[in-house]
Amino acid sequence: MMLDAQAVLAGCDRLATLSSLEDGIERVYLSSEHARANQLVGEWAESAGMRTWQDAAGNLCARLEGRRPGMPALLLASHLDTVPHAGRYDGILGVLVAIAVIGRLKRDKRQLPFAVELAGFADEEGTRFGATLLGSRALAGSWDPDWWQLTDAKGISLEQAFSAFGLDPARVGEAARDPASLIGYLEVHIEQGPVLEARDRALGVVTSIAGARRFAVTLEGQAGHAGTNPFALRHDALCAASEAVLSIETLSRAAGCVGTVGQLTVSPGAVNVIPGRVDFSIDLRGEEDATRDRVWHAIDETLSRIGEARGVSVSRRETHRASAQLCSPRLQEIVAEGIRATGDTAPLRLFSGAGHDAMAVGALTEVGMLFVRCAGGISHHPDEAVSQQDVARAIDALEASVLALARRCD
Amino acid sequence: MMLDAQAVLAGCDRLATLSSLEDGIERVYLSSEHARANQLVGEWAESAGMRTWQDAAGNLCARLEGRRPGMPALLLASHLDTVPHAGRYDGILGVLVAIAVIGRLKRDKRQLPFAVELAGFADEEGTRFGATLLGSRALAGSWDPDWWQLTDAKGISLEQAFSAFGLDPARVGEAARDPASLIGYLEVHIEQGPVLEARDRALGVVTSIAGARRFAVTLEGQAGHAGTNPFALRHDALCAASEAVLSIETLSRAAGCVGTVGQLTVSPGAVNVIPGRVDFSIDLRGEEDATRDRVWHAIDETLSRIGEARGVSVSRRETHRASAQLCSPRLQEIVAEGIRATGDTAPLRLFSGAGHDAMAVGALTEVGMLFVRCAGGISHHPDEAVSQQDVARAIDALEASVLALARRCD
Repeated sequence: MMLDAQAVLAGCDRLATLSSLEDGIERVYLSSEHARANQLVGEWAESAGMRTWQDAAGNLCARLEGRRPGMPALLLASHLDTVPHAGRYDGILGVLVAIAVIGRLKRDKRQLPFAVELAGFADEEGTRFGATLLGSRALAGSWDPDWWQLTDAKGISLEQAFSAFGLDPARVGEAARDPASLIGYLEVHIEQGPVLEARDRALGVVTSIAGARRFAVTLEGQAGHAGTNPFALRHDALCAASEAVLSIETLSRAAGCVGTVGQLTVSPGAVNVIPGRVDFSIDLRGEEDATRDRVWHAIDETLSRIGEARGVSVSRRETHRASAQLCSPRLQEIVAEGIRATGDTAPLRLFSGAGHDAMAVGALTEVGMLFVRCAGGISHHPDEAVSQQDVARAIDALEASVLALARRCD
Repeated sequence: MMLDAQAVLAGCDRLATLSSLEDGIERVYLSSEHARANQLVGEWAESAGMRTWQDAAGNLCARLEGRRPGMPALLLASHLDTVPHAGRYDGILGVLVAIAVIGRLKRDKRQLPFAVELAGFADEEGTRFGATLLGSRALAGSWDPDWWQLTDAKGISLEQAFSAFGLDPARVGEAARDPASLIGYLEVHIEQGPVLEARDRALGVVTSIAGARRFAVTLEGQAGHAGTNPFALRHDALCAASEAVLSIETLSRAAGCVGTVGQLTVSPGAVNVIPGRVDFSIDLRGEEDATRDRVWHAIDETLSRIGEARGVSVSRRETHRASAQLCSPRLQEIVAEGIRATGDTAPLRLFSGAGHDAMAVGALTEVGMLFVRCAGGISHHPDEAVSQQDVARAIDALEASVLALARRCD
């Protein structure tokens, strides 16, 4: 029985052995490791007293009935797939914490005014086919038929992999849940960032999952000899880009958003040649879309001003845009109540800069998330780590959240 | 007879046909084109009334005696080799302007108190073997025996190429001139920069040839997820580098130097990852070494300050250092007098940010340089261009300079 932190962490260790890599963890959608993980997690869910099944998209599902059979369900979920050379907690921890909580509900013979369901999503990371959130989007009914033609590194299409896994592409729609069958969604996840650790908290209430906007910017100035061109006659694209990088930092920071220039290349890129062209990326995220969009507007204007002042042409192209998914005020409060039950009287609220399954499920029902501190904010890396004490608090908090929600529904 | 601008430009066009490329100009040290260029330029020098020879390093040399045979010589020179896909004036124009001037001295039967010599240096650019100024350093007696093992793109060593060209490596020392045999050195060269054009001048007096200092700088911060790391917890190496780039610009500019960051690479370089490391180059040049070195000291301190403020480690390594070669006050004045004779009553003085043969010859005798305006400051490119009128002024000015020097020596 998986009821406490020790059992959950042992489960994470066990799942880490289901890997396609000899020297690390990688478990991708529709692989043999995926099938084995569903099998294993299904067994744990059954031990916890749940009925289990695999849905039409390969997600591992389970259900504990409420006080009457067939009641709408609270869905507790996260994902079971990984990035290459992953840690052992990203996604997985949330699924196993949910099993522990449901096991306790069963053990304590709780008669809840809703069913409790579990989902171990089969693809969140998009490692195999590039597109992300395939599992949760199948459940949310937002599966995109264009995905069938996506191929993995070996040239196998999603459609082929689906069939090889024993699933029927024609029936993927059956994975979609009727919104009326759900009363809400709660997800536990490691923070994948350093905020809880820096603020000395084990847990945090997620306010929203930021949607990123991304831009590709090109600055074209004029290349020239580094010795013979005085400053007054230069149009140095890298000096312009440097002003842009610092403005992006200043403007994002002032608005409480995060803005990052992660890629930047300089042409022609010789030690004695003034940069004639710089290409760089912008990744911009905020708790709310409106704030993030105001920051972009300010960055956009600043880019023009920099270009004009330096005689450097500026072009920008939006390459990606996702909306923020707000966690509902009701479920934020439920999550906070769960955390307070663990002794943290003023739970920290923070937004998630990383994407999560809750983004997809938010189209279906209201969502809430609880973050667990991870060491050094490290994730997507073998060094990913959580403490047993924090996991114990996460189980206690999620259990308390479910019971708090039950009280409100009564 | 090459006596005027039209003939000089026709000569440049003719030399442009001596190329290893079908679709552009490339003429490198110890190539068959080098031999043919020496032959052709030697013929022009002979037509101008000079005695010609090829020295022990492959430089084309010529001499017009002064009023008595065997007098110390004023050396007029530049280089005949090119970069790949070169223009037709870099170096070459200076050699041909010198021939035109010497032709006029001969035509006008000037009895000068010094001989006038010509050198068409065989290697200034370093295109073939990487090391630069081979021709002028042979003449200056600073040939480096380590060079013999340098190889070209085909693996041919300088020593092998030397022999294949018909030269004897053991005798390269014979190219070195006795300082007592020279009274000075004057070089005409296109500016390779945009200053004369911007200031509406055909010609300029070079005050010094800047020696560059170059540095490789590495900033190491901490990579991390672009969404989950708030600014307060970031150590973004690119933000630090951007401050550095702008400081280098500001500090260099304030001191009248030029400083350039021409190479900059970001690691890991993903759109959604905070840059953990940035490597960049600095190229720093100034009219005087002391000023340039003070600027470096200020940049160095600023790098430390930026690193400390951002929690980013900074390492720097000097990769190149050359001293500035001052043009002697006497020859600067002689060059200015030559320019004044063309009607420009207040000749512009400027330093050269690019390297020239005069840097090597400066170890041997005092040097002066005259810059000729080139279109758009473009050089090392097929679009390199000069106007016939400017070339006419350059010939007139150099002739006037030689006569002015003769008056002072009398």
